Amino acid sequence: MDRWHRALGIALRDEPADLILKNARVVNVFTCEIQEASVAIADGVIVGVGDYSEASEVIYLAGSYLAPSFIDGHIHTESSLLWLPEFARAVVPRGTGAVVTDPHEIVNVAGLAGFQAMLDAAAGLPLGVHFTVPSCVPASPMETAGAEMTTEAIQEALAYAGTAGLGEMMNFPGVLAGDPDIYQRIRAANGRRRDGHAPGLRGRSLDAYILSGMTSDHESTQLDEAREKLERGMMLMIREGSTEHNLHDLLPLVNDNTFPRCCFASDDRDCLMLLTQGHMDETLRRAVRAGLDPIRAIRMATFNTADYWRLERVGAVAPGYAADLVILRDLESFECELVLYHGAVVARGGEPAFITESVIPDALRDTVHIAPLSASDIRLDPADARRAVGAVDGQIVTRLVEVEPRVESGEAVPDLERDLLKLVCVERHRATGNVGVGYIQGFGLRRGALASSIAHDAHNIVAVGTNDGDILAAIEAVAEMQGGLAAVADGEVIDRLPLPVAGILSDRPLAETAEAYERIEYHARELGAQLKSPFGLLAFMALSVIPEARVTDQGFVALV
Amino acid sequence: MDRWHRALGIALRDEPADLILKNARVVNVFTCEIQEASVAIADGVIVGVGDYSEASEVIYLAGSYLAPSFIDGHIHTESSLLWLPEFARAVVPRGTGAVVTDPHEIVNVAGLAGFQAMLDAAAGLPLGVHFTVPSCVPASPMETAGAEMTTEAIQEALAYAGTAGLGEMMNFPGVLAGDPDIYQRIRAANGRRRDGHAPGLRGRSLDAYILSGMTSDHESTQLDEAREKLERGMMLMIREGSTEHNLHDLLPLVNDNTFPRCCFASDDRDCLMLLTQGHMDETLRRAVRAGLDPIRAIRMATFNTADYWRLERVGAVAPGYAADLVILRDLESFECELVLYHGAVVARGGEPAFITESVIPDALRDTVHIAPLSASDIRLDPADARRAVGAVDGQIVTRLVEVEPRVESGEAVPDLERDLLKLVCVERHRATGNVGVGYIQGFGLRRGALASSIAHDAHNIVAVGTNDGDILAAIEAVAEMQGGLAAVADGEVIDRLPLPVAGILSDRPLAETAEAYERIEYHARELGAQLKSPFGLLAFMALSVIPEARVTDQGFVALV
Repeated sequence: MDRWHRALGIALRDEPADLILKNARVVNVFTCEIQEASVAIADGVIVGVGDYSEASEVIYLAGSYLAPSFIDGHIHTESSLLWLPEFARAVVPRGTGAVVTDPHEIVNVAGLAGFQAMLDAAAGLPLGVHFTVPSCVPASPMETAGAEMTTEAIQEALAYAGTAGLGEMMNFPGVLAGDPDIYQRIRAANGRRRDGHAPGLRGRSLDAYILSGMTSDHESTQLDEAREKLERGMMLMIREGSTEHNLHDLLPLVNDNTFPRCCFASDDRDCLMLLTQGHMDETLRRAVRAGLDPIRAIRMATFNTADYWRLERVGAVAPGYAADLVILRDLESFECELVLYHGAVVARGGEPAFITESVIPDALRDTVHIAPLSASDIRLDPADARRAVGAVDGQIVTRLVEVEPRVESGEAVPDLERDLLKLVCVERHRATGNVGVGYIQGFGLRRGALASSIAHDAHNIVAVGTNDGDILAAIEAVAEMQGGLAAVADGEVIDRLPLPVAGILSDRPLAETAEAYERIEYHARELGAQLKSPFGLLAFMALSVIPEARVTDQGFVALV
Repeated sequence: MDRWHRALGIALRDEPADLILKNARVVNVFTCEIQEASVAIADGVIVGVGDYSEASEVIYLAGSYLAPSFIDGHIHTESSLLWLPEFARAVVPRGTGAVVTDPHEIVNVAGLAGFQAMLDAAAGLPLGVHFTVPSCVPASPMETAGAEMTTEAIQEALAYAGTAGLGEMMNFPGVLAGDPDIYQRIRAANGRRRDGHAPGLRGRSLDAYILSGMTSDHESTQLDEAREKLERGMMLMIREGSTEHNLHDLLPLVNDNTFPRCCFASDDRDCLMLLTQGHMDETLRRAVRAGLDPIRAIRMATFNTADYWRLERVGAVAPGYAADLVILRDLESFECELVLYHGAVVARGGEPAFITESVIPDALRDTVHIAPLSASDIRLDPADARRAVGAVDGQIVTRLVEVEPRVESGEAVPDLERDLLKLVCVERHRATGNVGVGYIQGFGLRRGALASSIAHDAHNIVAVGTNDGDILAAIEAVAEMQGGLAAVADGEVIDRLPLPVAGILSDRPLAETAEAYERIEYHARELGAQLKSPFGLLAFMALSVIPEARVTDQGFVALV
C-alpha cells in the first residue's frame, strides 16, 4: 500500500501508525500554544496530533515537551572543522533537524565538484541539509581561490535538487558599485531566496543593497542596524556563532509584531563550541534566559526559518510535516531527551543514535599543491613594509596600521619588541608560486610560527611567525598533511592538526577533532599569542573583503 | 542605462527618481509601525523610503497614509460577472493591487484554452493577477462540464508563467476516499502552494485532508473549525464575499501569535457588491470596525497574502518592492485617494485612471450549444419526484427533502401551494441532449421561470419554474444570448442579462452590468422568489459537490 493511503487509513480509521509519541506537551508554532496530545507518525511523516494509540511502537513521553527540531538559518558547516557526517553527529543530538548551509569554504577549494560532493555527503544523513549556492567565489579578485563560481556555475548549482537559494552575497561593495558581473549572479537566482551579507550597511547603502535582490541578513551587530534591515523587509537572522554573539544586542527588536520576521543563525561554530556548548539548543537557552518567550523562541528557531527558506513541510508539529522532532524535558535548558528525524530516533540523551559512513570523496582529497618555497620567497621588501595588518582579538575586522619597518640586510624583518610579525600567504591550489608577505601587529607570538590552510575565503596557506625558518617549516608541515594547522618552534613542529578534507576539514570524529583543536590553540598561546583563538584569528588574516588590511597570496591588501 | 544602475544612482547619489511620494505616513508591514517619510520610485519599483526629493514628478501627500495595495488571497473573478479588464476597473480604484484567482468557472467552460485566455487578458492590466490552476474540473463526475482538467493539463498550466499554485482542491470527499486520480493532481503541484477547500472539515478528517498536501483554506465559517485549521498549519483565509461573511466569526482567532498565519479572501463577490461596497477595502473597514488593529489588518491584507503565495516583491513598502501602493486618507474608511500600480497612478478618488481594451477572445465566445429541447425532455417521472432539492436562502448548502409528488397525466408537476417547483439542468457545452429534472422546494416563484447559464461549476443551463412553457422559454432565451440570465412570465421574456463571455461573464462595464443584474434580480423577486438573490441561489442548484441535493444535467443528485 502506498504511503498516502496508509496515512489516510491511520488518520481516518485508526489503522496502526509506525510510532506514537504518547502524552506529549506539543509546542504548536502556529498558535504558540502548548497542546497536550499524542502524535502519530507513519513513513517518517506526522499523520496527526491528537488522541492516537495504535502503532507498532509507542514512546511514552509523560508530559515532556515535543517540538519541531531546530533549524539553523545560515551556517557554514565547514567552520566546525568537521566533515558533514561528523557535523551531523555533533548537532543532531543537540536537536538540530535542518541547516541552511552555504558551503563556500569547500567551494572555494573545489568548485562545483565540491558542491556536488557536499550534496552527496548530505544524502542519507538524519539531518536536513539545505544548500545555498555560493555567490562570491572567490571572495574578491584580490585572492586566488581553487575555483570560481561563474554565473553559469551558479545557475547550474541552483538547478540541483536540495538547493535553497543563492548564498550570501558578500560582495556588497561590488553590488553598490554596480558591478554587472555581480548582478548577473544575483539575477541567476530570480524567484529564489537570496541570502544577504551586509555588515554595518545602513540607510541609502542598505536600500541599494536590498533593491538589488537580497532578502535576508545575518550580519547585524547593532540594534539600529538590525532595525533598518527588518523594516526594509529583510529576514533578520540573529547570529550566535563562535565569535559573533549578536543575540543580546538584537533581542530587543523581537516583539509581537516583528517576531515572524526573525530567526536564528550560527554562521560559524567551531567543533569545540559544538561539543561544549551546543548549537541551536544553546541559542535557545540564551534567548530564553534573556527574556524571550520560549515558545516564540522555538517558533523562530523552527517554522520561521523553514518558511523563509521555503523548506517544504518542516518546522512544525502538524499533519503532513516531516517527523523531525525534539523531546525536551523543559523549555529552559532545551536539553534534548530524544531527537527524531523522519520519524526515527536519531539521538538519545545527547548522544547520536545513528551510524554514518565518512567516505571522503576524491574531489576533496589532495587539494594542497604549493610551489617549492624558500626564504627568498618570503622576503619582505622594506618599501612594502610601511603598513601592517593590525589584528584585533576576537574580531575579524582588522586595522590598517602605519609602521616603521625594522630593516636588516636590506629586508624588513620581525620586531618582537613592537609585536611586528611576518604574515605570509601562499597560494596552495594550483602551485602558482604566488606568495604574499606583510607585517602583522597584535598577534603576540614570542617565538616560532603558526600556519593554517584554513584561510578565509580562498583557503590558501596563511602563516604568521617570528622568523623565516619557522614560518617555512610551518607552511611545509601544513602542505605535508594535505592541509591542516601547524605550530612550529625552533624548527620543530610542536603540534599539528591534519585537515585532509579539502585542506579545511578533519576526517576524524567530533571529540577527537575538538580536543586536537583545543590543544593546538593551547600550543599557539604557549608560543606567546595571547589571543582567545590564535588559529581562529589567523584564518581571517587573508580575507580580502573585510576591512581594513590583509595579506593574500597576491600581497598586502588595504581595504579602507 | 539599465534599471538596476538607475536605481542605484537614485539610492546612492540622489539622482532623480521617476516619482516621489512626499511626506507620507508609510505603513510598514514588517514592524507594524507608521513611518513619516517620502518614497522614491523608479521604473515601477520602490527605491527607498526616507528623505527623497529629486524626481520627475512629486506627489505631495501631506501626511496621508501610504500602504501597499491590497491583495485578495482567494477569489474567482468570474463571480463578479465581469470580464477581467472590467473586473480590474472595478477593484483597482478600491485599492486592490493583486488577486490570487482560481479561474475555475472559465475553465469549466473552456478548459486550458480558457485558462490561457485569462492569462492573456491579465497581461497589461494594472493589477497583479496571479492564477491558481483549477484542480477540480469538472467538480465531480456527476455533472458534465465543457472541459476536463486532467493531471497532464494541470501540469501544463502550472508551468505557465504567472501561476501561483494549485487551485482549491474542492473534492475533499475524493481526497478522504483516497482517489488516486485526485492524488495525482495534488502531486502535480509538488513544491508549489496548494489551495484547500475544506468546509466544515474537523479532527481526523481535517488531518487526512491536510496531510494530502493542501496548505491553505478559506472555507471556515466556525471559530473552532478555523482554529483547527490554523493550528494544523493551514494559512487561514478569512472570507468576506457576497454571501459568505466569515470575518465576524473568525476574527477572535487573530491575536499576537496567530496574525502572521491569517489573511483575507473574498472568494466570490458579485459586481453589485463591488460597485456599492467595494472589495478588500470593505473587508478592511469591517475588520477595523470589529476591533482589529488597522496596521495589522493591512499587513494581513498585503504582505501575509503575498508571502503565503510567494508573490515576489509585492505587499510591502520597501526597497525593491513593486510600487503597488494605496494612498489612504485614514485607516478607518480605507478610502483610496490614489492607487498606484508599478509606480503609475491607476485610480484617483475611487475612479479608474487607466484604459483597458476588452477584446473577448474567440475561445470564450459561442460556447453555448444545446440540443433541441421540447416539453417531453423536461418531463418529471413521479418515481423520480419523491425527493426535492430544499433551497436555503442565502446559503449554498441545500437540504434533501422527502416529498409526495403532485401527479397529473402520469407526470410530476409543480405544486405552488407547497412551493414545489421544477428544477431543470440542460447540458450546454456540446449539445449532448443531457437534461436533468427534479423538484425544488423553498425557491418561492409564484409564476414564470428563471434560467441561467451560470450554474456552478459546470455552467450548464439551470432553470427553475412554475410551468414547462416558461421554463423552456427561459432556457431558450439564455441559449439565444449565448449565455446569460433570463426571467420569463406567461411565455414572455420580461428581463434578460446577456453573458456572452463563456456564457458566464458580461462584456459590458461594471456599472451597466451591476444595474442589469440588480434589475433582473428585482424581476425575479417580482415573480415571487422572495430570496435575497434568486439568480444567485439558482446558480448553485446544479453544484454536485455541496450537500445535500442538486439537479445536474445527469439528473437528481443526493449528497448525504
